[in-house]
Amino acid sequence: MALGKDYAAQQCSIARALEVVGERWTLLVVRDAFYGVRRYNDFLVHLGIPRAVLATRLQALTEAGVLARRRYQESPPRDEYVLTDSGEALWPTLRSLGLWGREHIQGTLPMRLFVHAECGTELGVFGQCTACGNIAVPVEGIEMRPGAGLDPDPEDPVSRALLAPRRLLQPLDADRV
Amino acid sequence: MALGKDYAAQQCSIARALEVVGERWTLLVVRDAFYGVRRYNDFLVHLGIPRAVLATRLQALTEAGVLARRRYQESPPRDEYVLTDSGEALWPTLRSLGLWGREHIQGTLPMRLFVHAECGTELGVFGQCTACGNIAVPVEGIEMRPGAGLDPDPEDPVSRALLAPRRLLQPLDADRV
Repeated sequence: MALGKDYAAQQCSIARALEVVGERWTLLVVRDAFYGVRRYNDFLVHLGIPRAVLATRLQALTEAGVLARRRYQESPPRDEYVLTDSGEALWPTLRSLGLWGREHIQGTLPMRLFVHAECGTELGVFGQCTACGNIAVPVEGIEMRPGAGLDPDPEDPVSRALLAPRRLLQPLDADRV
Repeated sequence: MALGKDYAAQQCSIARALEVVGERWTLLVVRDAFYGVRRYNDFLVHLGIPRAVLATRLQALTEAGVLARRRYQESPPRDEYVLTDSGEALWPTLRSLGLWGREHIQGTLPMRLFVHAECGTELGVFGQCTACGNIAVPVEGIEMRPGAGLDPDPEDPVSRALLAPRRLLQPLDADRV
């Protein structure tokens, strides 16, 4: 079924949001950006999607102001993609989707735990730290840790780099060989 | 581009969740269920989507345990679709998407406000009531009110019924002529 990507007749901010992030793979590209993935080839090996799809998604997310493109090398020219403030504001959506998948789809073990880096407590369903008076933990204060469901010996180098505990948004390329 | 709907290589509960709710229109069907829409024809006029797409989405959501199908009339046989507990657990995802659309997509006015019915305070980004000690407000305790961006004179009867303040999950068919 060929369907467009907009929901023109829907007077609804959920529909507007889905026009930007509702296409296949888009939210997984954004997820990777939270994990610190910034470079085209890193997205490519970690997502395992066709190059054309990745290029289209990165372009659309940049045009929508969710990602910003930055030149990190001049010769040959290479760009990286970083979440904007608007992009970072998608964290509660991703967090709630991940928790829902883990709790409501049979056989889904926790792949990654998201904890308040300061105290090590896993974040609640609202992204709050229940041990610290239910404060909303900013994205920079969240540490990602491997969960019981995660393959401990993945094939691609990005997945391998993501096995170690790390802060969200910490650039991935900085800690790889 | 023809793309499947699963993300087989992604070891990720966000990816698992998107396999269930990530297809086009799916989250808007779920949204309508929160608004109290239960019947095929009501989804149809409110969403304005092709019949075949709606039927496929309702079936997939029922098979995934997000909606439950219930017979409400025997002759002729008519079914309605109601959110399960698993479906209701998608509220934080929808809420966060809606807030993101309103705050980060230019020109999007608030279409609907979601308030804690007991105290009238608009819910926070995680669905919590900031006036009541950041408690998580259960879906049944949320009242939906029209916002500044909502068309005050919509054409279809479902949109007209949804103009009045109402609790989430309150069956829509009960208050229409």
